[in-house]
Amino acid sequence: MSDTLLIREDADGICTLTLNRPDAYNSLSMELMQALISTFDAIAEDSSVRVVVLQGSGRGFCSGHDLKQMLGEGEEAYYQCTFETCSTLMQRVVNLPVPVIAQVHGVATAAGCQLVASCDLAVASDTSRFATPGVNIGLFCSTPMVALSRSVSKKHAMEMLLLGDMIGAAKAAEIGLLNWVVPEESLRHKALEVAGKIAASSRKAISIGKQAYVRQIDSPLEAAYIECSRVMTENMLTHDAGEGIDAFIHKRKPEWQHR
Amino acid sequence: MSDTLLIREDADGICTLTLNRPDAYNSLSMELMQALISTFDAIAEDSSVRVVVLQGSGRGFCSGHDLKQMLGEGEEAYYQCTFETCSTLMQRVVNLPVPVIAQVHGVATAAGCQLVASCDLAVASDTSRFATPGVNIGLFCSTPMVALSRSVSKKHAMEMLLLGDMIGAAKAAEIGLLNWVVPEESLRHKALEVAGKIAASSRKAISIGKQAYVRQIDSPLEAAYIECSRVMTENMLTHDAGEGIDAFIHKRKPEWQHR
Amino acid sequence: MSDTLLIREDADGICTLTLNRPDAYNSLSMELMQALISTFDAIAEDSSVRVVVLQGSGRGFCSGHDLKQMLGEGEEAYYQCTFETCSTLMQRVVNLPVPVIAQVHGVATAAGCQLVASCDLAVASDTSRFATPGVNIGLFCSTPMVALSRSVSKKHAMEMLLLGDMIGAAKAAEIGLLNWVVPEESLRHKALEVAGKIAASSRKAISIGKQAYVRQIDSPLEAAYIECSRVMTENMLTHDAGEGIDAFIHKRKPEWQHR
Repeated sequence: MSDTLLIREDADGICTLTLNRPDAYNSLSMELMQALISTFDAIAEDSSVRVVVLQGSGRGFCSGHDLKQMLGEGEEAYYQCTFETCSTLMQRVVNLPVPVIAQVHGVATAAGCQLVASCDLAVASDTSRFATPGVNIGLFCSTPMVALSRSVSKKHAMEMLLLGDMIGAAKAAEIGLLNWVVPEESLRHKALEVAGKIAASSRKAISIGKQAYVRQIDSPLEAAYIECSRVMTENMLTHDAGEGIDAFIHKRKPEWQHR
Repeated sequence: MSDTLLIREDADGICTLTLNRPDAYNSLSMELMQALISTFDAIAEDSSVRVVVLQGSGRGFCSGHDLKQMLGEGEEAYYQCTFETCSTLMQRVVNLPVPVIAQVHGVATAAGCQLVASCDLAVASDTSRFATPGVNIGLFCSTPMVALSRSVSKKHAMEMLLLGDMIGAAKAAEIGLLNWVVPEESLRHKALEVAGKIAASSRKAISIGKQAYVRQIDSPLEAAYIECSRVMTENMLTHDAGEGIDAFIHKRKPEWQHR
Repeated sequence: MSDTLLIREDADGICTLTLNRPDAYNSLSMELMQALISTFDAIAEDSSVRVVVLQGSGRGFCSGHDLKQMLGEGEEAYYQCTFETCSTLMQRVVNLPVPVIAQVHGVATAAGCQLVASCDLAVASDTSRFATPGVNIGLFCSTPMVALSRSVSKKHAMEMLLLGDMIGAAKAAEIGLLNWVVPEESLRHKALEVAGKIAASSRKAISIGKQAYVRQIDSPLEAAYIECSRVMTENMLTHDAGEGIDAFIHKRKPEWQHR
């Protein structure tokens, strides 16, 4: 069943995950969120994966929570569980030892927009659109705000959150929500190009660095430097750093141990 | 007297506050700051207000503190009181349960620029100008820095603070201090358009979300998610969320309880 | 010997420091880092210095750590010492009471890019290039990340850190790493113009403000305002603030005591 909800395809260290509820705009039902969390947990332990690309099937990337499912349940405990599960999912993306790239076409709204903000990198088609439209249904996008307000500046976050309007890909890139905007026919190519570059790097170095990012960004400057000095020393003692520096000095291609 | 210093006009849930010391470039005398604080306190309790628009009368928005008044008093206790009152005012804007939109023409300098940075959204005329010019008078804009450095990136904040130069509206928008720049003749129209959109949303949802922003932005990621998961559950249990989602599913216009 | 590694030239309150290991792309050997730290310590005590301009000799600004030296030593304690010394250096830039302007030509990579991010202001030639390329050698730029992720937004920081690619000056300015990009022939002129403006301000006011920036940026909003209200009162009680405000009111040029 999780095959249906979430498709995983691995090739050359690149793991592509496809949200596969096209008839529901890939909205994050409880089952899809749980499938994503389990899959991220598996990926975290799988040294063959060096980078994840996250995309949606059908007309768009992801439209957020499954509102029909939520209303159908209609109880406080269920709501709380839904938002906690969603928050757990977003933190799995942030804490995953390998980078996650959002590959976005169509719309990414509410928790779908939050997913884009939570990814390390994001490439989108020039026709994609983004919104945190909770205000339109009386449900402010408070959890999406956590990711959005850590990705874009205050006025831009408040504009999206208070007005709930769709913004185009160009504006999303301008405010820092996206890294690259490409024509839709180049979208997959661009995502794989970026993923391929990361997959060719030392998985060990990347995972050390990505995990350090999370720890240092919430720390005062001095604590961040103490932590990251320790991290760089740890990294320096790995095989791959020795190999990489030697290869650099001798102008040859490095051979990573932790491929 | 506060009628003179600060004009309040309410219409359709939009409360327009006009700084009204045009001969002093609407500088923030102690009396004007106190009038603003009292008015924000009243607005916080007034469920008929759904959004605030803040503007200045005369030639510009606001030129910061009233330097003549400050020099006239000339005592440490008075200075301390002035800066604390100003800091209280700025935090009232940030903590107000309804959004505050700065509608800026002419100049917004020092604490006036801080006021723009403290607002949730800002629209300005294309001839407006912004500065934190304290360095020019030997008084670094340290309290404006608190708001500015939470709105724009480090290098841009330091450029304004260390050089004290005026920047135009286009640059202010580029660095994230403004949301929209329009010709002066469209300024009021644009502010009311944005305010009108917010006034048509659920006041309850907006206030839950705006207050959550403040609490989560200073928290580490995990704590922010715990807090906002709770907040979304609370929001989900309101009448307006039930109504909004039902209206969305049935493609009808929602009727908010908390108008 | 430190004359060779690091050249200091003082004129009109502007202290120009030149990284002078042109044959090694001004890479930060242990000796050069120590020379920089000592020099910054001396500058912090030298009231004749009002602003620092930091540049590199030869083909570029700075290429980061001296990898040959590091590999040559090859021990954990040496690595740890290297990264701690580098982190100390970066925090000396941040905590120096006078502003530091990076004047960048050629490349600024790894800890060289970190140095640019750590400076208060940065001007660069239009042919300059920037990277945090550690991933290419299996050594993630974790300590540069501390400065970078406090200067540019999350997606932009991750793009530089995960891909390790060179970005041009225009893009570096767009993401907020640089304040100004000028033709190479105007680079020195622009740096001196900016430095000259700062040197003409009250050193006391600038140093009060710069040091307050560091303290408030890692604080929650309320604590930041309490701190900065106190700081502005302290600043208001200085000779220079009294002089500056009086000069402003009487439309004359101020005479700073703390020149």
